[in-house]
Amino acid sequence: MSYLDHIRACNAHDLSGFRPFELEGHRLGWVRHALAEQLPDIDPGFVVTTDRVTLAPEVRDFETRSSVMAHAAQFLVETGAVSALRGEFYPVMPAWGAEPLMRIDRAVVAQFGTPAYGLHVNGFVRQPDGGLSLWIGRRARDREVAPGKLDNMIAGGQPIGLTLAENLVKEAQEEAGIDAALASRAIPVGAVTYRMETEAGLKQDTLFLYDLELDADFVPQNTDGEVERFELWPLDRVAESVRTTKDWKFNVNLVVIDFMVRHGWLTPDEPDYLEIVTGLRR
Amino acid sequence: MSYLDHIRACNAHDLSGFRPFELEGHRLGWVRHALAEQLPDIDPGFVVTTDRVTLAPEVRDFETRSSVMAHAAQFLVETGAVSALRGEFYPVMPAWGAEPLMRIDRAVVAQFGTPAYGLHVNGFVRQPDGGLSLWIGRRARDREVAPGKLDNMIAGGQPIGLTLAENLVKEAQEEAGIDAALASRAIPVGAVTYRMETEAGLKQDTLFLYDLELDADFVPQNTDGEVERFELWPLDRVAESVRTTKDWKFNVNLVVIDFMVRHGWLTPDEPDYLEIVTGLRR
Repeated sequence: MSYLDHIRACNAHDLSGFRPFELEGHRLGWVRHALAEQLPDIDPGFVVTTDRVTLAPEVRDFETRSSVMAHAAQFLVETGAVSALRGEFYPVMPAWGAEPLMRIDRAVVAQFGTPAYGLHVNGFVRQPDGGLSLWIGRRARDREVAPGKLDNMIAGGQPIGLTLAENLVKEAQEEAGIDAALASRAIPVGAVTYRMETEAGLKQDTLFLYDLELDADFVPQNTDGEVERFELWPLDRVAESVRTTKDWKFNVNLVVIDFMVRHGWLTPDEPDYLEIVTGLRR
Repeated sequence: MSYLDHIRACNAHDLSGFRPFELEGHRLGWVRHALAEQLPDIDPGFVVTTDRVTLAPEVRDFETRSSVMAHAAQFLVETGAVSALRGEFYPVMPAWGAEPLMRIDRAVVAQFGTPAYGLHVNGFVRQPDGGLSLWIGRRARDREVAPGKLDNMIAGGQPIGLTLAENLVKEAQEEAGIDAALASRAIPVGAVTYRMETEAGLKQDTLFLYDLELDADFVPQNTDGEVERFELWPLDRVAESVRTTKDWKFNVNLVVIDFMVRHGWLTPDEPDYLEIVTGLRR
């Protein structure tokens, strides 16, 4: 592995296997051809041509559209393509910040290739010598996604109906036992984006990034069972682990690499520096 | 103006007006069609087709190639397209960090559209309340590029034969009277890239970015006449000025916007946040 390998893995995709999912002139996502051809039988609200997937003109409001998507989600569970729905809904928007056109169960977002958003918080401690250490979580072994992998101190998908700030407070409490006062000290520092083909479909993800500096005596406490344990690692160890292993949740590699770039640990002396810096945001 | 307007201005270009400049299978740059068609008359080392500009097979080493480029540079001065050569040379490389294939006078880089590299240092002061202030330079009125515009505390092109670290020390001394010990505390924090069409041609620039935290009593001193005076501005004033004026050197807007993103001044509440974050690196 190398830093760049992780970035490339998160951006490997071949759009020729998909057709665009469009609504009202906006491209909302991408659907695999095989699923696209099944959709009109699942719900007559889907209109599918060889060029694209869209919704029938009479499917025109948020609830009706969401209901058509729910039928597709149910179908994907019944055929075993998805093991279970999450009951957590993501907004489907023409762009971040725009009015959602409909909601979609988080479990089937990749099948429709609609952009998903999340937030990741780097919990870090400044050592007396100026070096940085990062709090990392070992994900519980019973997680469906990336069981046992290393994760950020706080990370979560961005569901419909919450602002980023509200979600940050909620996830900070659930994942690390951090109260709202401390969570509010997290500083937004940018975003990482990637577009990755998986067995499920196309993941088009944007992760809003935050840095939260913590006192040396602070210890995060997981409350929702998502994390098995937390450890505080010096950045050298983090870097070596990211560079040489697949121990980290696939997209967390990118968040940690971005942290190392912003804090001067990864420098222009790294031969892949520019490819790394530009590869983290597309 | 808006933040995004500055980013768009630095990325406005139409490649249909150019043809690629290639060597040994690498695309080195882009040349306007009109100049491309003149090149074989300027030096027989240029081989030009409707598809591309390249160099003749017998022009095969660094010095010979550089000499062909020097003839073109001289021609551009004689025709008035360039007012004067700089006598400062940029490397022409297949990629950053690769062995230079030739050198080119800085004054004609845009005419050949070869990527140029530079470094910009944000000199900043942390205020007692946690807010940040940025040292900015007012460029001298006699500068050929962006006279009188606002600039970073330290900024400079990356000439052939110097490492970034060496150039940082040199520019820190010349532009801000900062010694090597203090300059070495600058932290690399990423890069900004843009591709901009100008009257001269195509600017494909990569700026390596550094943050240098300074004590409250430090005052930069220009030694090379490039800066008329320095001022310490709170980030609020910097932001307002970038957002609403064209007072800043065109590419410095991008450096300052990146600084505001990384330090949490510009947040995801900004409607253009994602376009800004992804637009700064391409």
